[in-house]
Amino acid sequence: MSSSDIFIGETIGTAILILLGGGVCAAVTLKASKARNAGWLAITFGWGFAVLTAVYTSAPLSGAHLNPAVTLALAIKDNDWSHVGVYWAGQLLGAMIGAALVWVAYYGQFHAHLTDKEIVGGPGAQATAAKAVEAQEKGAGPVLGVFSTGPEIRNVVQNLATEIIGTIVLVLAVLTQGLNDSGKGLGTLGALITALVVVSIGLSLGGPTGYAINPARDLGPRLVHTLLPLPNKGGSDWAYAWIPVVGPLIGGAIAAGIYNVAFA
Amino acid sequence: MSSSDIFIGETIGTAILILLGGGVCAAVTLKASKARNAGWLAITFGWGFAVLTAVYTSAPLSGAHLNPAVTLALAIKDNDWSHVGVYWAGQLLGAMIGAALVWVAYYGQFHAHLTDKEIVGGPGAQATAAKAVEAQEKGAGPVLGVFSTGPEIRNVVQNLATEIIGTIVLVLAVLTQGLNDSGKGLGTLGALITALVVVSIGLSLGGPTGYAINPARDLGPRLVHTLLPLPNKGGSDWAYAWIPVVGPLIGGAIAAGIYNVAFA
Amino acid sequence: MSSSDIFIGETIGTAILILLGGGVCAAVTLKASKARNAGWLAITFGWGFAVLTAVYTSAPLSGAHLNPAVTLALAIKDNDWSHVGVYWAGQLLGAMIGAALVWVAYYGQFHAHLTDKEIVGGPGAQATAAKAVEAQEKGAGPVLGVFSTGPEIRNVVQNLATEIIGTIVLVLAVLTQGLNDSGKGLGTLGALITALVVVSIGLSLGGPTGYAINPARDLGPRLVHTLLPLPNKGGSDWAYAWIPVVGPLIGGAIAAGIYNVAFA
Amino acid sequence: MSSSDIFIGETIGTAILILLGGGVCAAVTLKASKARNAGWLAITFGWGFAVLTAVYTSAPLSGAHLNPAVTLALAIKDNDWSHVGVYWAGQLLGAMIGAALVWVAYYGQFHAHLTDKEIVGGPGAQATAAKAVEAQEKGAGPVLGVFSTGPEIRNVVQNLATEIIGTIVLVLAVLTQGLNDSGKGLGTLGALITALVVVSIGLSLGGPTGYAINPARDLGPRLVHTLLPLPNKGGSDWAYAWIPVVGPLIGGAIAAGIYNVAFA
Repeated sequence: MSSSDIFIGETIGTAILILLGGGVCAAVTLKASKARNAGWLAITFGWGFAVLTAVYTSAPLSGAHLNPAVTLALAIKDNDWSHVGVYWAGQLLGAMIGAALVWVAYYGQFHAHLTDKEIVGGPGAQATAAKAVEAQEKGAGPVLGVFSTGPEIRNVVQNLATEIIGTIVLVLAVLTQGLNDSGKGLGTLGALITALVVVSIGLSLGGPTGYAINPARDLGPRLVHTLLPLPNKGGSDWAYAWIPVVGPLIGGAIAAGIYNVAFA
Repeated sequence: MSSSDIFIGETIGTAILILLGGGVCAAVTLKASKARNAGWLAITFGWGFAVLTAVYTSAPLSGAHLNPAVTLALAIKDNDWSHVGVYWAGQLLGAMIGAALVWVAYYGQFHAHLTDKEIVGGPGAQATAAKAVEAQEKGAGPVLGVFSTGPEIRNVVQNLATEIIGTIVLVLAVLTQGLNDSGKGLGTLGALITALVVVSIGLSLGGPTGYAINPARDLGPRLVHTLLPLPNKGGSDWAYAWIPVVGPLIGGAIAAGIYNVAFA
Repeated sequence: MSSSDIFIGETIGTAILILLGGGVCAAVTLKASKARNAGWLAITFGWGFAVLTAVYTSAPLSGAHLNPAVTLALAIKDNDWSHVGVYWAGQLLGAMIGAALVWVAYYGQFHAHLTDKEIVGGPGAQATAAKAVEAQEKGAGPVLGVFSTGPEIRNVVQNLATEIIGTIVLVLAVLTQGLNDSGKGLGTLGALITALVVVSIGLSLGGPTGYAINPARDLGPRLVHTLLPLPNKGGSDWAYAWIPVVGPLIGGAIAAGIYNVAFA
Repeated sequence: MSSSDIFIGETIGTAILILLGGGVCAAVTLKASKARNAGWLAITFGWGFAVLTAVYTSAPLSGAHLNPAVTLALAIKDNDWSHVGVYWAGQLLGAMIGAALVWVAYYGQFHAHLTDKEIVGGPGAQATAAKAVEAQEKGAGPVLGVFSTGPEIRNVVQNLATEIIGTIVLVLAVLTQGLNDSGKGLGTLGALITALVVVSIGLSLGGPTGYAINPARDLGPRLVHTLLPLPNKGGSDWAYAWIPVVGPLIGGAIAAGIYNVAFA
């Protein structure tokens, strides 16, 4: 694969991943969406099938890593670091494009949600600290959640551990693919299995932190959240931003180590 | 493939698509249905597996486009316009037959829903404008929703953009199929992947407009809604009808352009 | 395939089908079940994956018809009637065994549901006609629903039409399988596709009658409901019993006709 | 396969199985989880895709039994007992590791759930027997349910019968895999089918006992529940512990017998 195919494939694939993944969060949490309150099962299947669509579409160009932790693990496994930079660049750019497209597709819903009086309060409603917290929880919080993950209980050690464990599971499944499919790589069935593994991780390990398990998935949209001119959007919680970057990278490295010791 | 096989295949396939797709909307929204209030996840899986069943059944005859935007994109990709007319004719006819079959299968449910006093009000209940709006929302609105899509927030630019974005995702996945499956075309796995891509688009991009992403899917049933002798059915919202026709066609053309530049 | 393999395969397969299909109805509707009120999506996926498990397990022995309407359609398609009797006999016996196994697996739940005072009323509670109807709706109705289907709106023409339409969709998908899979027959992917087609029919066409779409699925368990010593079980609604037998057989025959005209 | 590959494969695979399977129970039942109250469908898909991920990952090393009842059934089928011990040892160790990882990933959620005043009551709240029962039901009961199964209605004969029936279905599907896939063994599609069969058993036969259908799945985590320093955790219900061990082993043996008589 040429560097330009890798860059274009990762950009297109990660853009589709975040468009569909951020999209399902917008669909389920924002006001004036037909899918509002469709629940956690919709979120997890939505992200899983986002992976399916993105991997299937971009695999012919770049092999569909779409995740810096997967790229890191494959580099460790093969001890080949030549394309890591171009993969990561495409992934981050794609994630930002995808997040911007969510904003386009749900433009009216974002505006309706962030300016709704029932949600953010009427004139002067945020005068007290308690009301500002309530408006954050009902209004700006779900909007940030369309872009980036955040923990239910803020605890650096546990949050990092949960992201590491989730990413180990994901990357082990990606690495063993070659063993199951006789080297055919990420074809149709590989995309399907990876998608359902992501549904599994979401259902089973998504409860505490919202399962970033992918640095680009969290960092790119958080940058877009900071840049977009959304009314009443609140902060982008940059204090938490390093955990869904560092945790998945550690998890990917551990998974590559397990693979090289036990499976290779 | 002969023109008659294409016409018959597209007619049967699109009829199955709309029978099952309109059917799940009837099942979830109409009174006296066992599936009532089964929710958005039921709607999106219902439409996705409708695509699976329709594609699987009609692929041996016509290749299972079942969507004028897919036909347009394939014509642009291959620069072969010879069968576009017969595909589009079969698709529109099939969509109308499918919508009529939904009416047959849910005959009693349509009648019960549109004449229910709790829903449309008792004698004289629609005397005031406010009550007429309420009856529309509870009675005629869901019935039109069995046939055609409509936006949560009516905004031509956003509604068009959402339909274009959704269709780009769908058509890119359809076009890359040949690259993933070594030219085997729309076989068993292709039908499954396409179905899950449609579930994904529904979950992630269906919130604002109800994801027509297919001109025949919206136009054919809207014609049938206009023609059918349903009591209290209200209007067919023809003012919106051009968006789910034009948007998907633009989306299909853009996707074909992306494919020809980046993948071919 | 020998007649004894066919008989054993159809008996085992249809027993698994009804054990799992009736089982999900028991799980969702009976008192003291962990799955109580899990909803329509659970019912439809439960029946679909019941088909998957049953077809996958019995296909190596008998080809996994598991449905007299499928057997009839294949006999019409191939004009070969030599094994119809042995298929139908195995299917009916298997359906009865499966229904009896549901009773074993949910023994305590059946008893708890049918004797619960909140559901069927206290001493003398059924003295009035209104209370007897209420007890039927809350107690005996769901129990019969574990075994057999019944319509939401009782209308012979519509009920028959809905069962015919649903079965046409099912049987067309089964018949086109050979065209999609190059004669490999009902293997792994065939079982998966058939299962998801059944989920689709359930979601989209199950609302009015509960989608029997299989004479053995309805008749066998209804016989077992009549025979089992369940307290307060009420009648087995034999007046309706012919519709889920005759409707699917008509649907299977029509599908075979469509196949022979358009696909053969 | 070497004994060390078997041991490592079964340990990794069963650890992933229980991490994801126990994880979904924690996600759905514990306080301060994003997935709280996601329902029975989330539980059953979560366990099914846990099987998918675990089988897919460990199949290249050990063939992915991950269940002592499957190992027993294959030993009976092939009359080869040489590796039963190493399979069982890996499965039990893996199950314990997986349960411990659930505790790590949901550390804060376990603590929040077991110390929440609304759930377990304030100071002195457990002074009366009734309040202790209530706290058990709301607090310690769900926590034990993250680790091990328990019946809705405690009845040795029925509970054992339900586990036996469920395991027969599972093991028959596993054994017939070789017949469907021409000896390719537990590859990609085998993992997918087995996963959906487990979803099916969960939806259809999980209502009475929570479908252990795997001795290691229940015994390993119960040992960990006994060992972990969780506050207010209550007992580990060892009186019930033999049923989800003995039932599945009996079921596996019966399934092997059916296979050898009817399919071999």
